[in-house]
Amino acid sequence: MALRNTLSTVRVTASEEVRDLVADAARAFAPWKRTPPRERARVLDAIALALDAAAETLIPVALRETRLPEWRLRDELTRTTFQIRLFAEALRDGGFLDARIDHADPQWPAGAPRPDLRRMKEPLGPVAVFAASNFPFAFSVAGGDTASALAAGNPVIVKAHPGHPELSLATAEVVAAAIEEAGADAGLLSLVHGTEAGRLLVTAREVRAAGFTGSIPGGRALFDLAQRRPDPIPFYGELGSNNPVFVTPAAAERRAEEIAEGFVESVTGRMGQISTKPGTLVVPRGSRIVELLEEAELPGPAPMLNDRLHGEYERSLAQFSARHGVEPLHGGRSGAVRPGADPSPAILITQADYLHANARQLQEECFGPASLVVTYGEGEDLAELAGLYEGQLTATVHAEPECDVEALLEVLAEKAGRVLWNQWPTGVSVTHAQQHGGPYPASTAPGSTSVGTAAIERFLRPVAYQGFPQERLPEPLRDDNPWGCPRLVDGKPEEA
Amino acid sequence: MALRNTLSTVRVTASEEVRDLVADAARAFAPWKRTPPRERARVLDAIALALDAAAETLIPVALRETRLPEWRLRDELTRTTFQIRLFAEALRDGGFLDARIDHADPQWPAGAPRPDLRRMKEPLGPVAVFAASNFPFAFSVAGGDTASALAAGNPVIVKAHPGHPELSLATAEVVAAAIEEAGADAGLLSLVHGTEAGRLLVTAREVRAAGFTGSIPGGRALFDLAQRRPDPIPFYGELGSNNPVFVTPAAAERRAEEIAEGFVESVTGRMGQISTKPGTLVVPRGSRIVELLEEAELPGPAPMLNDRLHGEYERSLAQFSARHGVEPLHGGRSGAVRPGADPSPAILITQADYLHANARQLQEECFGPASLVVTYGEGEDLAELAGLYEGQLTATVHAEPECDVEALLEVLAEKAGRVLWNQWPTGVSVTHAQQHGGPYPASTAPGSTSVGTAAIERFLRPVAYQGFPQERLPEPLRDDNPWGCPRLVDGKPEEA
Repeated sequence: MALRNTLSTVRVTASEEVRDLVADAARAFAPWKRTPPRERARVLDAIALALDAAAETLIPVALRETRLPEWRLRDELTRTTFQIRLFAEALRDGGFLDARIDHADPQWPAGAPRPDLRRMKEPLGPVAVFAASNFPFAFSVAGGDTASALAAGNPVIVKAHPGHPELSLATAEVVAAAIEEAGADAGLLSLVHGTEAGRLLVTAREVRAAGFTGSIPGGRALFDLAQRRPDPIPFYGELGSNNPVFVTPAAAERRAEEIAEGFVESVTGRMGQISTKPGTLVVPRGSRIVELLEEAELPGPAPMLNDRLHGEYERSLAQFSARHGVEPLHGGRSGAVRPGADPSPAILITQADYLHANARQLQEECFGPASLVVTYGEGEDLAELAGLYEGQLTATVHAEPECDVEALLEVLAEKAGRVLWNQWPTGVSVTHAQQHGGPYPASTAPGSTSVGTAAIERFLRPVAYQGFPQERLPEPLRDDNPWGCPRLVDGKPEEA
Repeated sequence: MALRNTLSTVRVTASEEVRDLVADAARAFAPWKRTPPRERARVLDAIALALDAAAETLIPVALRETRLPEWRLRDELTRTTFQIRLFAEALRDGGFLDARIDHADPQWPAGAPRPDLRRMKEPLGPVAVFAASNFPFAFSVAGGDTASALAAGNPVIVKAHPGHPELSLATAEVVAAAIEEAGADAGLLSLVHGTEAGRLLVTAREVRAAGFTGSIPGGRALFDLAQRRPDPIPFYGELGSNNPVFVTPAAAERRAEEIAEGFVESVTGRMGQISTKPGTLVVPRGSRIVELLEEAELPGPAPMLNDRLHGEYERSLAQFSARHGVEPLHGGRSGAVRPGADPSPAILITQADYLHANARQLQEECFGPASLVVTYGEGEDLAELAGLYEGQLTATVHAEPECDVEALLEVLAEKAGRVLWNQWPTGVSVTHAQQHGGPYPASTAPGSTSVGTAAIERFLRPVAYQGFPQERLPEPLRDDNPWGCPRLVDGKPEEA
């Protein structure tokens, strides 16, 4: 199999090379755009199959580069290929096209006469995808951003995450080979390395959108570049989230063990390196939950994805611990990184008053297995506490049937993309109703999701065709609906 | 009826007053958001009814301030109230909520287990609307941006266009009174005057999105402000468009009269003060269309909306005329504004080669009744010519059944939000399949439309609810679907 030279080595991609890859992607756009969704689905399925088949090649590379346990990586690869197949299914269904037909209507009022108008969504053009470190499969080269952008009909140029360069390369090789073998242009997927290469991508004339998962400073810098272009492009960034959890007195009373246990598992799973890790647990003062957490056996020290994240975790933990209103509850140390030692999970504790006074600092994301317990007194208004938070990916309530949490839920639905009831926010299901995104900084585009089938909408835009003869229309807009797409005709869903 | 004091005078709105109005809007948000869509529809209908009933008050003010002929204004008011009622209809239908239910599924793969997840769209919060000058009803205080933002469940603060301040005030008074009389909070609509007030709006913490129709420099400045906020907000700007029209040799041969006539009508109607006015007509060299345009009786001098637009039109026309490769074909003068005289329509002419060499300058929008004819020689590639254009609101082809325009249509669909076949782009129908928007600078958000029912999507964002008991869910996500909304259940449209 002839693989693209540019995929064959891990090194910082030179500017010229980036420009060439972008030009290749631009050339690959027209034929891929013209490829009917059902055919694109076939290519996606081939990619999924190839990745599954390459597991024994990819997993060892991932183990070497990420320090994640093997079972986690295998689960993640399963999730990744499942995700690609789900987009293939969405392509076969055709609902993502949002096809609409309005027949000419002489009854439409003066000033807005209605000609024959038909509208559907079409791909944008080459998309830059910035891979994340924490999910080396599911949010990386062959992850959700790539799958949804490809499904939508766009070529993708991935900026590899420096945390797993070899795995990025190996994955890209598998994907590119599968694309080529399925008869499509291998230029549909390319890979670049290096910060400057990433900057070149968001400013390249041909690049029409970008997807990003990562830190607030990195994401914001790229967002700013994308918005300052002569022609700004959509930048879908998922930047950071604290994911607060609110426990009512009744829930704390009745389900202390269950809540303490679920919390520890959610905070420490995958060493807390998950964007939806609960960063705050708000519980009644004197609740048994606090005792249970103090007595809990937290998982022992374990490696983080890489030394950089370990260092940042320790720094961030030390900063939290150093606050005079914050005490260690479990494992909280103000210590520095001990050379050679793995980090430990930590739970800190403070009071609601202190959160009120330091809301901005205390909601900063501490990426890793740490969380802050906030105790509140009787009469404390949880909705008001919730109001202190910025935009979130998730917000959670643990409550009992009789609890009056209406006001709290209303605030949380305004702050977060996903609100949970008596569950934990880690584990983001890939499905139709998923919403992974939220008000800034959870997302730079609050109306979008980066997980679930709706993620495809980010990389499409509507085009209307007015007065077209049948044979000139794209298939989904023709009267006979040759592809059998779901459509809105004269404002009503068409009968199948 | 007690009207808000702040609505009772036309003067630059002081900063403090802007802050108060924004705070009022923020306060009005929660109850309006909680108001079921059917109830919001009732309020919208009341607004439409009140505006219709106030025609004899509003039209004279509009006549005084805009110099538009009365029949145009009456048509536009009809369009405006029709538009408001269409959003009310969309609210009753409920499809805009994009409700999705995924039941828990133990078969979902490891790494992405599926809990009970339900997702719908919810309003963003206070929206700033920047009114346009050219449609003092349909794109102003009670226009499409306001109607769609209110329908979505958001309070609106309108920045009045200085071209029609008294009409803005009179309209706002009618709308606010109708809102109050219908039992909703009058704080849902407020009005500010002045550039600085507009800047304060896009930077106000409580404002969650903005809609804008106007010029590229003005729109871009506000877009930049919105994106540079600590928490950037969506800015839906419709900035400018040339709306090129391409005529094939066969169409020019067979329908010269029809095309020449339609073109003149589309360019000069409403004195060309329409964002979809065709700014370029690309025709075969030596076509009778050119002769016909030369001989055509263009409408005589007529007033433009205001002196500022008149001045800009003359300046822009003089600039075009001064280019050595551009000749006047009809009415083209290099003259300056003659004091007291109304402007005349003008048609200029150039050759395709000159367009190739000066594409950027020649596609600049000349707001007013002027257009540029571009003649092309045999063998000229129309698709390549089309490729010279930036993002457009519309692009048009005049062709015959046997013409091979596939490549041209493909380029145009990539450049424009709406592509027309043998029709003219002016007259933007308000309907379900309309798309008024396109790649930058046609729109700052190419995935959105500012006209048609889909315009409501701009002011919503999805929220997912995980693991919620039935009675805690918003109505559209409950199993029994009390509001009868169209929904996607486990990925399939639910049977009604």
